[in-house]
Amino acid sequence: MSLIVQKFGGTSVGDPERIRNVARRVVATKQAGHEVAVVVSAMSGETNQLVALAKELGGQTPSPREYDVLVSTGEQKTIALLVMAIHQLGHEARSFTGAQIGLRTDGDHTRARILSIDADRIRSAISAGEVPVIAGFQGTDDEGNITTLGRGGTDTSAVAIACALEADACEIYTDVDGVFTTDPNMVPAARKLDRISYEEMLEMASLGAKVLQIRSVKFAMADGIPIHVRSSFNEGEGTWVVREEDVMERLVVSGVTYNRSEAKVRVLGVKDNPGVAAALFGPLSRAGVVVDMIIQNMSQDGTTDMTFTVPREDYERAMELMKDHAASVGAERVEGDQEIAKVSVVGLGMKDHAGVAAQMFEVLAAEGINIQLITTSEIKISVVIEEKYTELAVRTLHAAFVEAGAAEPVAEV
Amino acid sequence: MSLIVQKFGGTSVGDPERIRNVARRVVATKQAGHEVAVVVSAMSGETNQLVALAKELGGQTPSPREYDVLVSTGEQKTIALLVMAIHQLGHEARSFTGAQIGLRTDGDHTRARILSIDADRIRSAISAGEVPVIAGFQGTDDEGNITTLGRGGTDTSAVAIACALEADACEIYTDVDGVFTTDPNMVPAARKLDRISYEEMLEMASLGAKVLQIRSVKFAMADGIPIHVRSSFNEGEGTWVVREEDVMERLVVSGVTYNRSEAKVRVLGVKDNPGVAAALFGPLSRAGVVVDMIIQNMSQDGTTDMTFTVPREDYERAMELMKDHAASVGAERVEGDQEIAKVSVVGLGMKDHAGVAAQMFEVLAAEGINIQLITTSEIKISVVIEEKYTELAVRTLHAAFVEAGAAEPVAEV
Repeated sequence: MSLIVQKFGGTSVGDPERIRNVARRVVATKQAGHEVAVVVSAMSGETNQLVALAKELGGQTPSPREYDVLVSTGEQKTIALLVMAIHQLGHEARSFTGAQIGLRTDGDHTRARILSIDADRIRSAISAGEVPVIAGFQGTDDEGNITTLGRGGTDTSAVAIACALEADACEIYTDVDGVFTTDPNMVPAARKLDRISYEEMLEMASLGAKVLQIRSVKFAMADGIPIHVRSSFNEGEGTWVVREEDVMERLVVSGVTYNRSEAKVRVLGVKDNPGVAAALFGPLSRAGVVVDMIIQNMSQDGTTDMTFTVPREDYERAMELMKDHAASVGAERVEGDQEIAKVSVVGLGMKDHAGVAAQMFEVLAAEGINIQLITTSEIKISVVIEEKYTELAVRTLHAAFVEAGAAEPVAEV
Repeated sequence: MSLIVQKFGGTSVGDPERIRNVARRVVATKQAGHEVAVVVSAMSGETNQLVALAKELGGQTPSPREYDVLVSTGEQKTIALLVMAIHQLGHEARSFTGAQIGLRTDGDHTRARILSIDADRIRSAISAGEVPVIAGFQGTDDEGNITTLGRGGTDTSAVAIACALEADACEIYTDVDGVFTTDPNMVPAARKLDRISYEEMLEMASLGAKVLQIRSVKFAMADGIPIHVRSSFNEGEGTWVVREEDVMERLVVSGVTYNRSEAKVRVLGVKDNPGVAAALFGPLSRAGVVVDMIIQNMSQDGTTDMTFTVPREDYERAMELMKDHAASVGAERVEGDQEIAKVSVVGLGMKDHAGVAAQMFEVLAAEGINIQLITTSEIKISVVIEEKYTELAVRTLHAAFVEAGAAEPVAEV
């Protein structure tokens, strides 16, 4: 008998009929001889309605504390309804809010971090033969204030609960069949991955694959809890996210991802002195602008260029800040471009396989796609290109690395 | 400076514009130099939606524990939104769920009783210059389960909180101007009462005046907290519900009420032996049928008739139970009638004023209205008549006692 944590997102519990489907799946898992704990999101649409109300009454910046009190009602609704649906199937179940399982967080409202979970509360429900149905996304701080975990928070709750329970697996039910080698809407040849390492998943998720929240992957990786990303609309196996050593088929490139929501800012003719980077990025950080890639060219004649990317919605602010501060670092001028895309290839096999970067640049050059910026990590290479070439670049890289490479997995070295 | 608890019901917070109105009223009270704590219901319509979802997923008898988890989200939404609206007016406020003010109840889900309230949590918010905005209708039991107080529960929460804070008054904002001498829709001459005693209010409420929940009146009476029932849509004074000794104008009859939601059951030829009443009313009680009036005629030839009233929705069940048990008490037959109405006159002055009953019977007789049953208390006389005469009876009694009597209040004896 194994202990499985099942997480169902907003689409999976989007209406009463879907909630009944979730109840049937939970009961089927129990009847297959497993112990089950369930973590759910708000019904899809619910959170948007609540956020609209918050804007209407609280303006552009409603109190974060009250925002959390408001939006946490969404998950509370779902837990009660799902328990009722499980009861209707003749099985025992019991709902828990974040507070009721002692999910303690820091006090950083709307994006709190989990500090601890009282696993005994959940275990005693399981021991009593009940399926615990837990509200994701929410907890309380030291003073009993309701907090929420921010976007994708239910994934984080589910994995944190799986860790606290030392569960055998955490199943993330979603509206896709698993993690794909790239966006299937863009590349019909995209295929579902059977297994992927935590490290690859982190690179995929942070690069925009959006299947699984990045914080939840870090939690699972720390405790080695296997995550199973799968569809709530069919019975097929999805993608297992596991330790590197448990990934059998070690592909050079597991996936090709893209991100069209960033913009590029370039500060030219910066004096190449100590403290220059701090003088430029300090103001951005204080304004809450998150910088992604940073590239500094080799110095020539004591000056250099500094280029970086920011979320597109922060572009205007970043440009203004740079113009305000350019003079202080002796810069000549500031340029920007919103029509860019970041395209990345990710794969564990790169560690042992030289030449992936060179091959990537060749493939893009053959299509006449100019590379504006490059950054690399151990298992990822990202390039910034003109936005209009996004699809061409993704299709070509997928064909070159995944479709070709799928036939010849790299052996362990 | 006085401390005032303000309660706003579902209609008063029914949409964002009304919530903003409530915020303005709360702030105006604070600016007038008072300390304020606010208790709110779910937005009107919200609870019905939640109950419909509960029925859809939980069937006819959803788990009471989960029902409470579900419906308590309604008030939680309102508290956050009202606090945001108060913030927008530039004032400090902070929301509290039932759990967060330590509103402890017994474990009787969907109709729990309040055991205690942690007044210090509320007082410390007030001391910090914040308006505490508290979710009515909800609490938690010993084990931390969410409970609700049942119909009209927000009134009960508000008055219990006023008692715990030793407030100077509890203002109940509603969609009517106050407590009227009778239903203004039926009798245009109905007038708003300035003051009424707790005892009179109890008789008015339980007889169907529906302005104020009966349990809340009992709470206020026990601690002597004045209740001010008033409109949330205008600034006028409403009706104060106070101690008997604080009712200046002591009318013989303060109000005329009616109730058309009961039915009458009569068991004829019952043997006049000890235990007969228990044999008949035991089964009703076990079936959850609440009996209102009970009248037993004088015995003749060792047999008697037993007549009682029940809520109309329980009529069929009560008739079946009586037919099942009639033989065991030697009864001849069972009769019933759903087309009845109960009409009552209520007034403190009756205590000192003989002849109200006689006058009431005369007034009804003069209109040709036959009286089927009579019950009396110290400050109330109720009669059951044919339903079709309800309006005629109410108008005639109001004219005879209230419109005539208003000119000559009865002096203290």
